[in-house]
Amino acid sequence: MKVAIVMGSKSDYDVVYKAEEILADFGVEYETRIISAHRTPDIAAEFAKGAEDDGIEVIICAAGKAAHLAGVMAGISPLPVIGIPMKTSDLGGMDSLLSTVQMPKGVPVATVAVGGAENAALLAVQILSVKYPELREAFKAHKEKMRKDIIETDKELNEE
Amino acid sequence: MKVAIVMGSKSDYDVVYKAEEILADFGVEYETRIISAHRTPDIAAEFAKGAEDDGIEVIICAAGKAAHLAGVMAGISPLPVIGIPMKTSDLGGMDSLLSTVQMPKGVPVATVAVGGAENAALLAVQILSVKYPELREAFKAHKEKMRKDIIETDKELNEE
Amino acid sequence: MKVAIVMGSKSDYDVVYKAEEILADFGVEYETRIISAHRTPDIAAEFAKGAEDDGIEVIICAAGKAAHLAGVMAGISPLPVIGIPMKTSDLGGMDSLLSTVQMPKGVPVATVAVGGAENAALLAVQILSVKYPELREAFKAHKEKMRKDIIETDKELNEE
Amino acid sequence: MKVAIVMGSKSDYDVVYKAEEILADFGVEYETRIISAHRTPDIAAEFAKGAEDDGIEVIICAAGKAAHLAGVMAGISPLPVIGIPMKTSDLGGMDSLLSTVQMPKGVPVATVAVGGAENAALLAVQILSVKYPELREAFKAHKEKMRKDIIETDKELNEE
Amino acid sequence: MKVAIVMGSKSDYDVVYKAEEILADFGVEYETRIISAHRTPDIAAEFAKGAEDDGIEVIICAAGKAAHLAGVMAGISPLPVIGIPMKTSDLGGMDSLLSTVQMPKGVPVATVAVGGAENAALLAVQILSVKYPELREAFKAHKEKMRKDIIETDKELNEE
Amino acid sequence: MKVAIVMGSKSDYDVVYKAEEILADFGVEYETRIISAHRTPDIAAEFAKGAEDDGIEVIICAAGKAAHLAGVMAGISPLPVIGIPMKTSDLGGMDSLLSTVQMPKGVPVATVAVGGAENAALLAVQILSVKYPELREAFKAHKEKMRKDIIETDKELNEE
Amino acid sequence: MKVAIVMGSKSDYDVVYKAEEILADFGVEYETRIISAHRTPDIAAEFAKGAEDDGIEVIICAAGKAAHLAGVMAGISPLPVIGIPMKTSDLGGMDSLLSTVQMPKGVPVATVAVGGAENAALLAVQILSVKYPELREAFKAHKEKMRKDIIETDKELNEE
Amino acid sequence: MKVAIVMGSKSDYDVVYKAEEILADFGVEYETRIISAHRTPDIAAEFAKGAEDDGIEVIICAAGKAAHLAGVMAGISPLPVIGIPMKTSDLGGMDSLLSTVQMPKGVPVATVAVGGAENAALLAVQILSVKYPELREAFKAHKEKMRKDIIETDKELNEE
Repeated sequence: MKVAIVMGSKSDYDVVYKAEEILADFGVEYETRIISAHRTPDIAAEFAKGAEDDGIEVIICAAGKAAHLAGVMAGISPLPVIGIPMKTSDLGGMDSLLSTVQMPKGVPVATVAVGGAENAALLAVQILSVKYPELREAFKAHKEKMRKDIIETDKELNEE
Repeated sequence: MKVAIVMGSKSDYDVVYKAEEILADFGVEYETRIISAHRTPDIAAEFAKGAEDDGIEVIICAAGKAAHLAGVMAGISPLPVIGIPMKTSDLGGMDSLLSTVQMPKGVPVATVAVGGAENAALLAVQILSVKYPELREAFKAHKEKMRKDIIETDKELNEE
Repeated sequence: MKVAIVMGSKSDYDVVYKAEEILADFGVEYETRIISAHRTPDIAAEFAKGAEDDGIEVIICAAGKAAHLAGVMAGISPLPVIGIPMKTSDLGGMDSLLSTVQMPKGVPVATVAVGGAENAALLAVQILSVKYPELREAFKAHKEKMRKDIIETDKELNEE
Repeated sequence: MKVAIVMGSKSDYDVVYKAEEILADFGVEYETRIISAHRTPDIAAEFAKGAEDDGIEVIICAAGKAAHLAGVMAGISPLPVIGIPMKTSDLGGMDSLLSTVQMPKGVPVATVAVGGAENAALLAVQILSVKYPELREAFKAHKEKMRKDIIETDKELNEE
Repeated sequence: MKVAIVMGSKSDYDVVYKAEEILADFGVEYETRIISAHRTPDIAAEFAKGAEDDGIEVIICAAGKAAHLAGVMAGISPLPVIGIPMKTSDLGGMDSLLSTVQMPKGVPVATVAVGGAENAALLAVQILSVKYPELREAFKAHKEKMRKDIIETDKELNEE
Repeated sequence: MKVAIVMGSKSDYDVVYKAEEILADFGVEYETRIISAHRTPDIAAEFAKGAEDDGIEVIICAAGKAAHLAGVMAGISPLPVIGIPMKTSDLGGMDSLLSTVQMPKGVPVATVAVGGAENAALLAVQILSVKYPELREAFKAHKEKMRKDIIETDKELNEE
Repeated sequence: MKVAIVMGSKSDYDVVYKAEEILADFGVEYETRIISAHRTPDIAAEFAKGAEDDGIEVIICAAGKAAHLAGVMAGISPLPVIGIPMKTSDLGGMDSLLSTVQMPKGVPVATVAVGGAENAALLAVQILSVKYPELREAFKAHKEKMRKDIIETDKELNEE
Repeated sequence: MKVAIVMGSKSDYDVVYKAEEILADFGVEYETRIISAHRTPDIAAEFAKGAEDDGIEVIICAAGKAAHLAGVMAGISPLPVIGIPMKTSDLGGMDSLLSTVQMPKGVPVATVAVGGAENAALLAVQILSVKYPELREAFKAHKEKMRKDIIETDKELNEE
């Protein structure tokens, strides 16, 4: 099982590395690429065309502003594509969000929250777990761990 | 392979039936339910808890305004959850969109465009096709058909 | 008389403690809990189900982004639920606000301003004062004190 | 137990009458007034000052655009004030919503969804039920009825 | 000729003092008051009622969030009322702007830009200059000075 | 006393005529012009330059979309300029509003609500009444009439 | 001189034909294509790659929602690309606008107003007129005609 | 070949200098001016009228808030006008964007992203390259350089 993480710019890596961490925790192989839908359109197309044959099962794309990267991937590859709209310094990420989520009929992008790198990775895990039962179990364990963390924090607050 | 389509209100069905049509076209079994996160929270929880054991592999949720249905499902079930933010008559669906997509760390909802019932179904097909190769092929055929439709329309326009 | 303050994450406490201070000033008993609608949905449901029997009369919920906590509580408990939409770093809290206030017919959440922890507590006091005349008097005194503070500041400005 | 429903303009009545219906269903006495914060400020102030002594326990205000009515009431009366932001033809009600909910520290308005007249009435019932146990029971019954309605609709859909 | 500057909170003075400076430059008498539409509604009403008789000819109001101050003044006083929507830390001032400018039919507030204290003062000068020809001349001189400043800056840039 | 009403397009007249009616009611002389800041910039400049000498005391401008008309007038003429942001079919008038109200330091436009033609005229009357006492009295009478209309409507509602 | 008009969907033609009319009026050759960035990405790429050699000098793209068409063209072709953000039924076209205009550094799209097909064509004419003096003259004549139309309308209004 | 860069205020130069750098890199002559549409309307008009005769072929305008500068230029000059909406401290630049892009029929402004000074310059280069083949080649080289930079960054990331 393998996930591709593609980002439009090196600067996105400050957020995107969190997706890598989650995938690593789940033992999901991943490769991370910097590919720009606008500055390297040929590489984006080539990557999208080859992704399935390269054994990639889910593509995660992170891009900001007029964020077309996920849409470009989804337009070419039949693989499920997850979009992370990146926060922007002027419009807060509303531009990235609308550019990512408002895809036309026929070409969905599975969009997560602005800056939601962890959730993109977790969604990839959930998608893969449709096929890989061990990931399903690992995801349930992760869910349970989150649950216990909240319970623990709640306890600590009330013991202070 | 089985998908659950859950909507928060009967009135959502005017849009949601399009997801049914797509799933039917792909030969994906589905069940459609009206369950409100707010008016039938116990049924929502019960449904989410049992979904995996009921053989459901992907959950699609359609809800409007403060659209919590997808989030509630995703909070309980380990299955991938797809959210359709419904258009609203006053704020255009911006409320539904933000309520669906801006999920906190740990609990992703794969959000599609406002009113994007077809895309929700297609995304479900893409997710299932990670496991079911025949769906992958069918999806590719669907992509090719869309492509040909555009080409045909382009031809018609230029022949007029 | 007792108020529950529930927040979705420990980090919300930086704002939420102000609600505690107000309630303490008014001599209203309160308990503060960290419960996540999405990460601990069972505890959220359990809490909501038991709140009335536990002697709680008003529930205050603080949550950010796709803020479902107040809605989840209001879906289960018959108690009045007050929602504090938390400021977010990207969309400024517009996401939290719409997710909290735009509740569907049948399940209201009494929403205050983005980050309005003090007002949430004061609204709880106003609600309780429907029953407890001493709180009504205390609230009037508080209103009068605010009034005098403004008058004092106005005087100071004009004496400078 | 008595609720005041105040609206800024006669035209708001097309929506506001639904609040009357809910209150009537619950056997809550109400009076409905047309008072404009801007066009009849003296009457608004007078009404707010006298409301408590007139036996009113909750005030519901409906207003659109730069919707100040609820804020004006809340500035004067110690009673809990519920605000209904009315839909507007140009900005969809975003103006009414922000004008109603973003109240400054010290003067909360319990805001419901844009156009949420039913929810305003139900919130009033919830507030009153802090004091009147019979309303609490009636509200629970109403909640149960809503629940059954959804279940029924769900059944019908699946029997079709 | 006399202008009243009213602000809802002491903290607004960091911006509002710029209006004082402009008025002082033009030799327009002013008084500055801290009056809250919500926390000192009686003083706000009293002030508005007496403003005309006190020789005030224009009222400038600065307020943030659900900014009702200008609207309250305009509802009571026949004087022209200028509203300054204050920037807010979460919604950027969009809340203040809509609450100030979207006044209902019959009660206008002359709204300037978010945080536009200088422009509020200049607008007051323009309004007064309908009556006082010396202010008209001073305003023209100010306009000419601004013009020259830009020309000077342009020259400097091009000489660098 | 004379007011100029300038609109950017003939189609604005459907709303703008209401300003004419108000001014006529108050006995204020007015002239109405169709001048486009973008399509007839020379006429706009010429008009603005000559307005004061032509005896005009207040300029009202109505424009939609990137609504520059009021700003252009205010940049040239020393007269107080009132801006009416026109509703737009796609963005609801948010574009017109921000283009009209967010004027830079030094050049205020007194902005009224989206589509607020009546209020623009009333604001013009308020401005003129700084100079003309008879307009002040007429405005007070108008305010009193509005007040009575609301009271009447309130009475009717309660007698039904 | 030749312009390509590309639209993402046949339905855009209801607006886009106006661009054709303008170009025809100016005697600019054009071809109109239906090409979807997402449904026919290969054709979009091929078109963009060949456009310059096909003698096209400016590309106009019309697309709605997550409008990537103009960005895709601009990513591949060195030609100037003009983007028309199409109005959308839910978010009014704000999604199309931000997806079109907020292009990352290096790949500009010359964006016109939501639904601005005429202006896209006129901008193409302006761009071509950098090279073709006869178009410059024709554009000036068009500008003069618009000017006269406004003047005529103004006259008519004042003669009525 | 010559481009004019016009900005509304000296403070815009912190962003605008990047446009100068790009033009210098391409060997395009430019002049940079500080001209305010509102504070120096006569100079703005004069500049726009003379631009063509001064040998300017493209005008770039940078302005913030109610950004009218580009519109004013485009209203007068037949040259293609590029607008850079500047980021604003309160509304993030949404005001500048809408004021720049939403131009009425007949007077287009080629709008780039908020703060997009580099892209404005690149768009100017693209426009000029319709006429000057050497710029077309230089632009292609620049595109290729950007492409290689991304590829390099991608390589570095994967070699780390």
